[in-house]
Amino acid sequence: MPNRHPIAATSLTDVVEAVASGRSSPAREIEAAEERIAAADGTIGAFLRTAPRESLVAASAHRGPLAGVAIGVKDIYDTRDMETEHGSPIYRNHRPVTDAALVSMARVAGAAIIGKTTTTEFASLDPTPTRNPRNLEHTPGGSSSGSAAAVAAGMVPLAFGSQTGGSVIRPASFCGVAGFKPSFRLLPTVGMKTFSYTLDTAGLVAATAMDLALAAQLITGRELASARLPEAAGLTIGLYRSTVDIEVEPAMIEAVAEAARLLERAGARLVEIDEPAALASARDWHGAIQGFEAVMALSDEFHHHRSELGPMVRAVLEQAAKLEPSTYDEARRAARIARKAASSLFESADVLLAPSALGAAPVTLASTGDAQMNKLWTLTGNPVVSVPGLATAEGLPLGVSVIARFGRDERALAVAGLLQDLLVRQ
Amino acid sequence: MPNRHPIAATSLTDVVEAVASGRSSPAREIEAAEERIAAADGTIGAFLRTAPRESLVAASAHRGPLAGVAIGVKDIYDTRDMETEHGSPIYRNHRPVTDAALVSMARVAGAAIIGKTTTTEFASLDPTPTRNPRNLEHTPGGSSSGSAAAVAAGMVPLAFGSQTGGSVIRPASFCGVAGFKPSFRLLPTVGMKTFSYTLDTAGLVAATAMDLALAAQLITGRELASARLPEAAGLTIGLYRSTVDIEVEPAMIEAVAEAARLLERAGARLVEIDEPAALASARDWHGAIQGFEAVMALSDEFHHHRSELGPMVRAVLEQAAKLEPSTYDEARRAARIARKAASSLFESADVLLAPSALGAAPVTLASTGDAQMNKLWTLTGNPVVSVPGLATAEGLPLGVSVIARFGRDERALAVAGLLQDLLVRQ
Repeated sequence: MPNRHPIAATSLTDVVEAVASGRSSPAREIEAAEERIAAADGTIGAFLRTAPRESLVAASAHRGPLAGVAIGVKDIYDTRDMETEHGSPIYRNHRPVTDAALVSMARVAGAAIIGKTTTTEFASLDPTPTRNPRNLEHTPGGSSSGSAAAVAAGMVPLAFGSQTGGSVIRPASFCGVAGFKPSFRLLPTVGMKTFSYTLDTAGLVAATAMDLALAAQLITGRELASARLPEAAGLTIGLYRSTVDIEVEPAMIEAVAEAARLLERAGARLVEIDEPAALASARDWHGAIQGFEAVMALSDEFHHHRSELGPMVRAVLEQAAKLEPSTYDEARRAARIARKAASSLFESADVLLAPSALGAAPVTLASTGDAQMNKLWTLTGNPVVSVPGLATAEGLPLGVSVIARFGRDERALAVAGLLQDLLVRQ
Repeated sequence: MPNRHPIAATSLTDVVEAVASGRSSPAREIEAAEERIAAADGTIGAFLRTAPRESLVAASAHRGPLAGVAIGVKDIYDTRDMETEHGSPIYRNHRPVTDAALVSMARVAGAAIIGKTTTTEFASLDPTPTRNPRNLEHTPGGSSSGSAAAVAAGMVPLAFGSQTGGSVIRPASFCGVAGFKPSFRLLPTVGMKTFSYTLDTAGLVAATAMDLALAAQLITGRELASARLPEAAGLTIGLYRSTVDIEVEPAMIEAVAEAARLLERAGARLVEIDEPAALASARDWHGAIQGFEAVMALSDEFHHHRSELGPMVRAVLEQAAKLEPSTYDEARRAARIARKAASSLFESADVLLAPSALGAAPVTLASTGDAQMNKLWTLTGNPVVSVPGLATAEGLPLGVSVIARFGRDERALAVAGLLQDLLVRQ
């Protein structure tokens, strides 16, 4: 019987309901978030800076549907009232003119952008000093390190991250919070620092899968949060067997099996789905697409500021600079074929279950872990929700990914909500 | 017999060859461009600002393949040594930290970024004060107004533009210069102000189609410029008959027919191709994709700076803000179907010929003209080259578009080069 661990303490759904009902106010919720950050962040190091007073005063006066929701924003998203440094000394003290699209949309919906969270340099691999709130000696994962840690520590009910390989789902899994990597371009990436324009995906981190659905709905105006959870009976859940499962740790295999058992006991049908060859080979092309585009996207940083780059991102770029256009073109073709193959998977299942990471957060602050379990779905653009609630025998969180067909984000969120509910209740 | 007009005076191929052979030097070419700008731009108004001396001194010392090539850059591309204002008072005096990807790539290849050219606000519709060098009372077109005018007046051999509807091909046609809208994402748009991320395409303007091919090859490292022009014999040229051809002016219809006659006389086979229904209807969805994405991309400008926006872009955004997500999703589906239909066209033709604009540049500086002839190919992502050399009876330029299959940019450029050669020789 796998262990459980508690979900994060601050729920977005609770905040939204408390403000809407008048039991609380935006000002009180924002102040409470400030107090939690002041109390906890000295140990965790999730935040780089918090918002100026006048921004929070303005947010406190807002009456939109997200009023009172304090959001931590990964420091690769432009903010007009706070420095945006992309985790890099090249951008030290850089202040954008305008907010990134997603930041602005959240403000329009009433949210308070309460501060900027740590990111690996350009959302690549060089770790930040942030610690994993579930166990301070373990990495929180990356590249959205600060966003996952800020939610896990209960400081904020919502944070923005981004994923090019596994940078939302992996830290969410490591920190025991819910992570949402939507369908490619469901959330705009405008004003977010580009690493790979074919892969970069804006994502969300919150305490539970239901919180993610509500946040995504209120920011986009799309119907993404179902009024009630779906019935398990009638659902077909695919247990996705990838060619790299051999690398997954036993505790994570057991966690996914436990999630499947809970859904089956509730009435869902389980089917095993073996990874098609087109998807197995596409996983190996991810690096070529990411690298070739990063060398262009970061051309000025690479050619004009090379000595200022961190060692890991610099090595990634130096390696990628050797790629030929023909290799990139072949990788793009493989990705197109993989997207079709990924859609076909959903002819035999409503959603897929898979590990959110190879295992629990490694005991290190010198690496942010491995994106092996995530990069295929980033490449294909399918929506993925990582559901928290399971843990190793030592109590380290293990996330389970719910994957849906491209464009069926509401389904991924709904089944993730169902699984979340089963995990919390049992 | 349609009239001809001369190609622009400054050829990139000439500059590259003169520097490579030692007949000229980067310093001499850059100085010559500075002198041409000083002499001509008071009348034309293509440039907003020119580069600081130290940037040009550094470029003069470069020995890359584009050394000595002075480039005018549309002011929606970030430049670290010059203000980047996106044609908007919201960004007055804004100085980016780093160069846009394409700008950096051009510098790495040795080019001199000599100045920033005018753009309509956020590359939308509000005209700039730039005049058409072929006739000062006529619009140069937009949104890449300054880039097309700078090349047409012979000030620079190359300029960067961008196209979301028809913003490269239309001004190229109006100003009598060659324009290249590559396959979607052949050239990176990172560091270019976003209006619509599904449509925004980085493009080039030069004196001739051959100049465009050489520039694209030297910037990207891709084989895009054939060592010699293709044989007309063996080529099948599709005369594309769209459902909106009824709006095209007689002089433009005659120009396309003349281009077809020249190619046929040289040995090419002509076929007529009627627009498939999937492409006719996709053209009407262009506006929904562009508008819905622009409202997100410019969320901060729209919500926080609305009174500072120009009347035309403001009206576009206000109208688009009413669009439902479901309308956008339907438009995206129509675009996907159109991309497949566009590929099928090239089963019966190597390239297509079509008008680059509805006619010659209108006699006005209050509008930049109509994107009706261009927006379908922006939506499908096909490469388009506008070839200059033909004119109305009054001598106003008329561009002819050569369109190829997605990803076959080298073919569009090669056939455009052949047509260019036929137009110059005869």
